[in-house]
Parts: sequence; structure tokens; C-alpha cells
Amino acid sequence: MAVAYDPENVFAKILRGEIPSHKVYEDDVALAIMDIMPRAEGHVLVIPKKPARGLLDIAPDDLAALIKRVQHVAKATKRAFDAEGITLQQFNESAGGQVIFHLHFHILPRFEGVALRPPGAMGDQAKIKSQAEKIRAALGAFSA
Amino acid sequence: MAVAYDPENVFAKILRGEIPSHKVYEDDVALAIMDIMPRAEGHVLVIPKKPARGLLDIAPDDLAALIKRVQHVAKATKRAFDAEGITLQQFNESAGGQVIFHLHFHILPRFEGVALRPPGAMGDQAKIKSQAEKIRAALGAFSA
Repeated sequence: MAVAYDPENVFAKILRGEIPSHKVYEDDVALAIMDIMPRAEGHVLVIPKKPARGLLDIAPDDLAALIKRVQHVAKATKRAFDAEGITLQQFNESAGGQVIFHLHFHILPRFEGVALRPPGAMGDQAKIKSQAEKIRAALGAFSA
Repeated sequence: MAVAYDPENVFAKILRGEIPSHKVYEDDVALAIMDIMPRAEGHVLVIPKKPARGLLDIAPDDLAALIKRVQHVAKATKRAFDAEGITLQQFNESAGGQVIFHLHFHILPRFEGVALRPPGAMGDQAKIKSQAEKIRAALGAFSA
């Protein structure tokens, strides 16, 4: 029933530095990167460094450590864009909406009356780069 | 900027036993109840016992403890319905999709080709009651 973790997934490659990403946060537990197919302005992903396919196979203590990073990045992201809300999503298996099979939490800054965009459309890379800088600045302000 | 927790929200009333709910799991940290407006068959909510408005104001250690309960209930829920996937959602502020202002994680069992239903429609109470029994049975099988 349990499906094995595939070390060739895109996030595993990003974690190994084999493909580039727009990093906004990194520590021993987690990496936060911009979603290159953003469903909202400032759409960020937080992933564990240890291999895990999803919510159901990660060790509980690793999940507990990860969600603290999700919260930390979500706070900074809300502040970076002065967002009115945050939507958090996490998908498990294709039926659950998962596309890349390394656990990731979606942090989506929200504004009243602005719907999420449909998934699957590439974003403007220059815009995403500048959004990443804003989030990094907000994270820096937090730890200062 | 931070909005105060309102102790008269529906989940606070459920936690105080002032209004009924279909409970599937409870310990010192969290309560899991059926969503009475299910967007999928077996739609469960996991809420912290301590007051928290959302992801951004809960204490990090409380969030870490809560997400372990979310994982525990998600595993049982997937098993109870033999679901093909799980979608996890958590909404913050109206702009982020939040309707009840006590932190809650939505656990949505998913099947290929079955879309989430739109929010806001009351479910069949007898069906929800029987789904709660299935999840409780799956949780019991876990801890056995």
C-alpha cells in the first residue's frame, strides 16, 4: 500500500543542488522555495530536508519540526506582501492533488476577492525572484 | 494587526460542550470532529483545545503537537475509507478562506476523478454519523 519515496523527484534534485530554485529560507530541517507555478502572488513551498513522500509517511517528530518552519515562513510571507490572509494546502497522492512526490506545504498569500489561479501555469521568473527577495527581507526582519 | 480570539466561535462552543459534534478523536491537545458541511465524504477537522485563531497566532510548540494529531487522524481517515489520497487545507482569515475563527485543519479523503464539493452545503447527518464511526473504528485499530 505504501509507495516508496522516489529520490529523482524535483524537490530531491533541488535539495541536492542539481537544479536551481528561488530559496527564501533554509535550516537543518527545512527548505522554503518559491513555487514556479504560483497560484497566488508570493506562493511559497516549505519542504523537509529528509526524504518523505507526504503527510502520512513522515516521522511525527520530523513533521512537528517542519510545521514550525511552515509557520515561521507563513508569518514572514504574510508580512512581506501585507496579505489579508494565508491559505495553507498540502496534497497527498495524485487523487489528493499531489504532483511532486516529496512532502511540501503550500503557503498562499491571499487578498479579499482574489481567487487562487488554476494550477500548472508557469509564473514570471523575474517577478518570482523579486517576491523571494521580499520574503527573505521579511524573514531577516523577524530574526533581527 | 493581530485580531483577538473570539471565545464565542462555534469550535470554542463545541470544546466547551455547549453544542454537539461528531467526535472522532480527542486527547489533551486536540479534538477531531466531522465537518457538518463536508466537501468530501469523510471530511474531518482537527482543532487545538487551546484557543488559537489560526496558523499565525498559535504557539509553535502547540502547533507541533497539533500537527501530530492531524497526521494520526489523517492516516486513520485514509484507512477508514480506503481513500486514494488526502488533501489537507488550513485557512487563515476571511481572505484566506476561513469561516470559523478557531484554528482547524481540514482532512479531505480523495479519490481519482472526484472533485471537492463547493463549501457551505450541509451534509446528511446520518451519513456523517456513520462516517465518524468508521474513522473511530480505524483509530481504534491503530492504537490496538
